[in-house]
Amino acid sequence: MHLSELTHPNQLRGLSVHQLQQIARQIREKHLQTVAASGGHLGPGLGVVELTLGLYHTLDLDRDKVIWDVGHQAYPHKLITGRYHRFHTLRQKDGVAGYLKRCESKFDHFGAGHASTSISAALGMALARDLKGEKFKSVAVIGDGALTGGMALEAINHAGHLPKTNLLVVLNDNEMSISPNVGALSRYLNKMRLSPPMQFLSDNLQEQVKQLPFVGSSLSPELGRIKEGMKRLAVPKVGAVFEELGFTYMGPIDGHNLEELIATFEHAHQQVGPVLVHVSTMKGKGYAIAEQDQVGYHAQSPFNLATGKAAPSTKPKPASYSKVFGDTLVKLAENNPRIVGITAAMATGTGLDKLQAKLPKQYMDVGIAEQHAVTMAAGLACEDIRPVVAIYSTFLQRGYDQIIHDVCIQNLPVFFCIDRAGIVGADGPTHQGMYDIAYLRCIPNMVLMAPKDEAELQQMMVTGINYTDGAIAMRYPRGNGHGVALMEEGWEPLPIGEGEVLRQGDDVLLVGFGSMVYPAMQAAEILSEHGIEATVVNARFAKPLDIELIAPLAQKIGRVVTLEEGCLMGGFGSAVMEALMDHNVVVPVMRIGIPDGLVEHATPEQSMVTLGLTPAQIADRIRTTFVKSTVTVS
Amino acid sequence: MHLSELTHPNQLRGLSVHQLQQIARQIREKHLQTVAASGGHLGPGLGVVELTLGLYHTLDLDRDKVIWDVGHQAYPHKLITGRYHRFHTLRQKDGVAGYLKRCESKFDHFGAGHASTSISAALGMALARDLKGEKFKSVAVIGDGALTGGMALEAINHAGHLPKTNLLVVLNDNEMSISPNVGALSRYLNKMRLSPPMQFLSDNLQEQVKQLPFVGSSLSPELGRIKEGMKRLAVPKVGAVFEELGFTYMGPIDGHNLEELIATFEHAHQQVGPVLVHVSTMKGKGYAIAEQDQVGYHAQSPFNLATGKAAPSTKPKPASYSKVFGDTLVKLAENNPRIVGITAAMATGTGLDKLQAKLPKQYMDVGIAEQHAVTMAAGLACEDIRPVVAIYSTFLQRGYDQIIHDVCIQNLPVFFCIDRAGIVGADGPTHQGMYDIAYLRCIPNMVLMAPKDEAELQQMMVTGINYTDGAIAMRYPRGNGHGVALMEEGWEPLPIGEGEVLRQGDDVLLVGFGSMVYPAMQAAEILSEHGIEATVVNARFAKPLDIELIAPLAQKIGRVVTLEEGCLMGGFGSAVMEALMDHNVVVPVMRIGIPDGLVEHATPEQSMVTLGLTPAQIADRIRTTFVKSTVTVS
Repeated sequence: MHLSELTHPNQLRGLSVHQLQQIARQIREKHLQTVAASGGHLGPGLGVVELTLGLYHTLDLDRDKVIWDVGHQAYPHKLITGRYHRFHTLRQKDGVAGYLKRCESKFDHFGAGHASTSISAALGMALARDLKGEKFKSVAVIGDGALTGGMALEAINHAGHLPKTNLLVVLNDNEMSISPNVGALSRYLNKMRLSPPMQFLSDNLQEQVKQLPFVGSSLSPELGRIKEGMKRLAVPKVGAVFEELGFTYMGPIDGHNLEELIATFEHAHQQVGPVLVHVSTMKGKGYAIAEQDQVGYHAQSPFNLATGKAAPSTKPKPASYSKVFGDTLVKLAENNPRIVGITAAMATGTGLDKLQAKLPKQYMDVGIAEQHAVTMAAGLACEDIRPVVAIYSTFLQRGYDQIIHDVCIQNLPVFFCIDRAGIVGADGPTHQGMYDIAYLRCIPNMVLMAPKDEAELQQMMVTGINYTDGAIAMRYPRGNGHGVALMEEGWEPLPIGEGEVLRQGDDVLLVGFGSMVYPAMQAAEILSEHGIEATVVNARFAKPLDIELIAPLAQKIGRVVTLEEGCLMGGFGSAVMEALMDHNVVVPVMRIGIPDGLVEHATPEQSMVTLGLTPAQIADRIRTTFVKSTVTVS
Repeated sequence: MHLSELTHPNQLRGLSVHQLQQIARQIREKHLQTVAASGGHLGPGLGVVELTLGLYHTLDLDRDKVIWDVGHQAYPHKLITGRYHRFHTLRQKDGVAGYLKRCESKFDHFGAGHASTSISAALGMALARDLKGEKFKSVAVIGDGALTGGMALEAINHAGHLPKTNLLVVLNDNEMSISPNVGALSRYLNKMRLSPPMQFLSDNLQEQVKQLPFVGSSLSPELGRIKEGMKRLAVPKVGAVFEELGFTYMGPIDGHNLEELIATFEHAHQQVGPVLVHVSTMKGKGYAIAEQDQVGYHAQSPFNLATGKAAPSTKPKPASYSKVFGDTLVKLAENNPRIVGITAAMATGTGLDKLQAKLPKQYMDVGIAEQHAVTMAAGLACEDIRPVVAIYSTFLQRGYDQIIHDVCIQNLPVFFCIDRAGIVGADGPTHQGMYDIAYLRCIPNMVLMAPKDEAELQQMMVTGINYTDGAIAMRYPRGNGHGVALMEEGWEPLPIGEGEVLRQGDDVLLVGFGSMVYPAMQAAEILSEHGIEATVVNARFAKPLDIELIAPLAQKIGRVVTLEEGCLMGGFGSAVMEALMDHNVVVPVMRIGIPDGLVEHATPEQSMVTLGLTPAQIADRIRTTFVKSTVTVS
């Protein structure tokens, strides 16, 4: 049987190990070809081919449920659950998603995108099963990186306390998040990987213990305790942490050996209560280039399979915001030893890898642990360190309470640098950075700014680092800047809460925030061609808003359009409306941004079209529905 | 020396154990008298009197920093750091706060209120210290309940990976959160508490191991490994989990024995790297009534010290929202075995203790683990269970990403019952439930409602449980209802997104949400006395908003006032403004709610006055600044 002929994953159950190995080869081939052609996650999926096949070989997937953490390693799962023939559409608009989605397949039991959720979800399903008196297996597959997320540890703590609730946790230990893992748990797992299997030692020890003089004979309570202690000691130490937390631990096993995987999973299914199977895998397995550069090949844009090299770009692109951020932070940190950059396992994504290389003492990677990152930064700020917390908009949601409770209520000067704010493209709904304006704006003692381009990002970095009155956040988009000249000197902080007027016109006032300022300018040019002259304001700050600048303009012009790359509910436009109303300026306001709803995966450009956020669309909306309409004013 | 004469905690360093014991007695006396007189947290503080004194005896508090987790156990700390003479003002407006606050004392190094933050903060300070080349001790004191919060485990994982960073974690193990702890970690700690100190066993074992034939002789690699294994086995098992995670573990020690505490802390200070001292304490220690009812005496309203009985209420009060919620949930769950109530260690506070008692299978306490609670609920919802997640507004901030990523993006029917939404009183800024409208409203697939009184809360519970199209949340305030008749039968769900008109009038439109509907009605009556007739709408839903009802009224009346017990930035009032503007109704809107800023501790009534939210104040604001003013309309 060829992979392409698989119509149901249960067909795997009838296959021999040799046949499964053939399927494994075919999965790797398809996986590699697809990602090389269209980009996507590479290393994670290649690492779990045998794990997936071995696990599914032991399950009845019409009943049993497998919850994949994050989901970026689930391409093999997708290829054997009915998506082979559509797989070339991976991460493309209307195509197969890059993560799991419940609406995409009945075998995607729980969607993901963020890390550390699978054990909680699988435990919920297991508890539901037992409540309803049903019988099926509930399995979470979680990486060693994701296991360091606090939520996964909360779930371990809960599951380990439920000795009758059958739950299988498969720990996919590849020693990596996107970058090599940090943390004590990771070191502990590594120690176990390096140990030879301990069963022999244990057997041997039990023999030795039997021969100790006091074992087996009638004992005083004191000696009885010693015997009990010896018995416990005779259990292999490997996995002790998990065993002490109530799990039956098995492993570590070779995650590329199908016999070992199948035998272990079969054994695991026979246990009662929570079981953790520790599987040792290699990211990028089977593709030598990826095995050798596991960070670089975690995810890839299209590349040449033979060389591993990225497809040459058709034209040179301006530097990305992340790159400008990373470079600028190094420059600032070189001159200020109090600056510390903090990442939660996203060194390369955020551009902090430059800081790590150049000034390692001023760099901290806390692992996948956004909550801890934020509160640790608060602790640093108490001691006059200038923490620069670089976290994607979508992942900062994980540290929300910490921003409120530990940073803002205490009014501590932590500088949040929020990358991937706005539309993120192929990663889809779980990764859209669209809520941060709304969820940060409502917090007291928080300044929120967004640069119109990469040079202003540099200015705002200076602003953020110089601001010591409380928390300050800067949001900036995924992708490339506008190619404007970067600052070389004269780096002065911006006045907090001051916007700027970029263009004058009497017919309509456009107030743009961050990445929507350039589109606002472009829309103004289009409007001008139609005889409508716009004033364009770069707000710079959503909080505090420059209402002193905006209110008189709004009053004079009488029509306001706000533009933001974020959700409209409670977002920047609402901030403008609130402030105008509070200043008794009652004029029509049209808010342009992301309407209430999910934004599916597509290219960022496609998403912007779908959302009506291109300059032409903006100009059109303003022209046809706003300026020309007779607005009812009471 | 008497406690009242202490002017600096370093004075404790010169005292003998006997003298410290006297201070301990004086602390308990003052602690008990104060809480009996004015209410507050009782059991937590009484349990750590000796821990506090023993620890401070070994520190130089001009340099060293102690971070207390949560802070509700820090009354002894407050009494010895200069707040003895003001302590009778505890939790009262402008008085001593019930938690720690950086602005209250230089010895309050990190404020708190929520659990599980201390290790992250203390680690941040330790890292800052090392960066700056300073020398001081950084100490976190954390309860066993708080240790189950994922963030604390993230911090343990990080700290355990930093062998050169001195950090002391004092684990205050009283076997409780507010209720007895759940979770595997708690069981593990309990096992250690029950074990006799293991040093003897270890010594004895080392002797035994030495006598095994293969130890000490020249060995094959195989046998060498066995020897290495035996050596590791000879280390005491107690604390193995922490040891494996990189901590030096000491304990468990008797948390009420000052000699043992001081000796252990002195020993701990001599270690390099992260150290965990496991201290066994008893909640309520020294007050027999509290020792015997540790749940009941976690916190108390004023009570009689001799009997432990609460001071008799001057007049009978209506049932609290939490009580009506708890009772109603039992009734609904009795008729629907699919209903499951979920709490994160707040069974009594949320009223879920009734469900626990009556229908234990339909009750789940996950410990202090809001993230896990939310995603586990999502897992339950996947299996057609109806999860009712009862979490205070302020603690739900901990599960924010999970609400977005695991519930709403997947459009799963989870029912969030958000207690303590709005002003909470004496607990102060860390506990105000003022952000939830803003932070939930921006999430797609989320319905958000709030009842005007306890009968409507019952209706909304039926609504929430019947709603299966996605997530639904109900927010309701701390404190008592209005004493209205509760529903006995005919429990029909409300139509989603429909408000109701409670009063008619042509001069101004008041749109109230939840707890502000009654004040809106009362304000309308006052306005009527001044010849201003108001229409009052009970919005019921902030999302979806009943704009079909509100827009025509707003258009006709021409002046809108919104009322909410939540932050104004991005809140309910903004929702009304957004919707009106989107419907081309451009009229003045006055938003009444909580302005951007922290709300300090006080009685709820005092806070409402400070915020201008009493009916008289509302009527006054409307009368003097809104209806009478000439509003500028373009």
